[in-house]
Amino acid sequence: MTAPVAEAQLAETVLLNHVTFQTAVATKAARCVLAAGGAQLVDFAFRRTQGIDASLAVARASAIAGFIATSNVAAARRYGLTAAGTMAHSFIEAFEDEQQAFTAFAEDFPGKTTFLVDTYDTGRGVRAAIEVARRLRLPGPVGVRLDSGDLAALARLARTLLDDAGLRDARIVASGGLDEYAIARLAASGAPIDAYGVGTKMGVSADAPYLDSAYKLVAYAGRPVIKLSAGKTSAPGAKQVYRRPGGDVLALREEPPLPGHEALLLPVMRDGRPLAAPEPLAAIQRRCHAALAALPPAARALHDAEPVPVRISEQLKSLRDRTARDIMRRTADRTAGT
Amino acid sequence: MTAPVAEAQLAETVLLNHVTFQTAVATKAARCVLAAGGAQLVDFAFRRTQGIDASLAVARASAIAGFIATSNVAAARRYGLTAAGTMAHSFIEAFEDEQQAFTAFAEDFPGKTTFLVDTYDTGRGVRAAIEVARRLRLPGPVGVRLDSGDLAALARLARTLLDDAGLRDARIVASGGLDEYAIARLAASGAPIDAYGVGTKMGVSADAPYLDSAYKLVAYAGRPVIKLSAGKTSAPGAKQVYRRPGGDVLALREEPPLPGHEALLLPVMRDGRPLAAPEPLAAIQRRCHAALAALPPAARALHDAEPVPVRISEQLKSLRDRTARDIMRRTADRTAGT
Repeated sequence: MTAPVAEAQLAETVLLNHVTFQTAVATKAARCVLAAGGAQLVDFAFRRTQGIDASLAVARASAIAGFIATSNVAAARRYGLTAAGTMAHSFIEAFEDEQQAFTAFAEDFPGKTTFLVDTYDTGRGVRAAIEVARRLRLPGPVGVRLDSGDLAALARLARTLLDDAGLRDARIVASGGLDEYAIARLAASGAPIDAYGVGTKMGVSADAPYLDSAYKLVAYAGRPVIKLSAGKTSAPGAKQVYRRPGGDVLALREEPPLPGHEALLLPVMRDGRPLAAPEPLAAIQRRCHAALAALPPAARALHDAEPVPVRISEQLKSLRDRTARDIMRRTADRTAGT
Repeated sequence: MTAPVAEAQLAETVLLNHVTFQTAVATKAARCVLAAGGAQLVDFAFRRTQGIDASLAVARASAIAGFIATSNVAAARRYGLTAAGTMAHSFIEAFEDEQQAFTAFAEDFPGKTTFLVDTYDTGRGVRAAIEVARRLRLPGPVGVRLDSGDLAALARLARTLLDDAGLRDARIVASGGLDEYAIARLAASGAPIDAYGVGTKMGVSADAPYLDSAYKLVAYAGRPVIKLSAGKTSAPGAKQVYRRPGGDVLALREEPPLPGHEALLLPVMRDGRPLAAPEPLAAIQRRCHAALAALPPAARALHDAEPVPVRISEQLKSLRDRTARDIMRRTADRTAGT
């Protein structure tokens, strides 16, 4: 008896482990995309994710949410994402000065030159980047990355210096402890930032590092089952979730489909085998984008977001009450009989 | 030029990824141990860690901090820890009632019977556990696990029922959303809890899911280097950390050793090779225990802990100022010359 249940329990644990973290991170990444108002986003999280496989999950989840590249080369290879190598402060420091560092980097990567300009003094760093870009006559548009200080003010300074030097197509990238709130403030200030590198806070889903989600047994051997633990009551029976713009309905799968609603749950496994090949990432990205766009604006708000209303069907409520009564009666009979 | 630096950068990223998370989780786990005041602790985090390798790191880090077992069987095998399988609510629900579930479990695991008693009603669950333990005349002491509700009150109720049934050596385990603060409150209330299962909040280091630690280049080709980025200035040169009960001193490695202090940094790699076999886990556990015991009580406090004071040596301050002046002068010369 215990062996098959133990196997199911392990599957439950592994699945829950995967699903809850990926959902948390994809949500945080989607909030960054919504906050950025059209600016591009790049995943910089690898350094501080909670392990290596978390870094892979973060790269994939943030790509689904709309990030355009990742600094995680292994993840880029595995999932077919765009790798965006970053210039490190240690690279700059290994040279006598920034000009020498920028020159060496641009000679190795002439088409991918985003110069990190804040190692010593950001204004001087931008001037050094301009000098190198002009001297080497780099083919593509250059970029500068600001990683510390007052990013809005420094972005304006950098934009002015670059424009004055005739580098109007140079891009400005901002990074350094960013999350959706910092990005929204920078975007609202009108700072001329073309792209954001988002790392730690997105990569560990810093303000919601876990979802209190669960994975519950709802039926066994054809019998609906329920857990009544204080504050953690579960709902019995196989479910379907019906969605329409006004909100979701949680119903039993055996109920007739609700007209005007989309049924969200689809079978993906049967008898231990997947029913279809994994979806391409592009299809998942499109669905994520469409689902976000279909949310009520209040549910997409960065602050005080209003949850989408969820209604429980009458049949589900009735099954829950009946199952709870049944088990309490059986339990009472047994305890009285001891 | 860029290739070796890129390799160093990857090593930096992977190392930082490992060290920061393990430090965060070991700290959180150590705080749980301090809060539990002698009660035992078991790692229940696997379900909600940020990936599978994070779950392994959590099992290891919490064992180092003093946890006595883990529900993560893979981690127990890998690190030689004690595996503590848990009974799931789904296991109970798969039977007609709790007596049948407890009986099946106890027949399969007669020496390891910790009954999960809150699936339907905790009082009845404890009575069912008592009935099964008596009927089967189980060889070892039984346990009951409380996973919801008012854990202090339910622990008192369970203790009374167990004692009245003559099961004075039965153990009471509490779990469900616990962290060091909840454990400290339960311990302070005098609740008769023998062990705590600690999961999610410890496993993701929920209130400190990342450490803002860094890994910086301090010298290159014999030359000390520095980063001056606003708010992120680094300190140049190879360091040593000297510790004594009153606090730490951060000094240059070339300074003469500080009398009465312990030097904390030891070489572990040279020319890409480890200098010794990895330490056994037991040695790391002992060092962790001794280091925690040696902390000033105010630094060990759960609330408003006071950091251990860190003094910077005069030589290090002087090198930092000199290196900063040098690089600013070089940078100014170059920018002026463009």
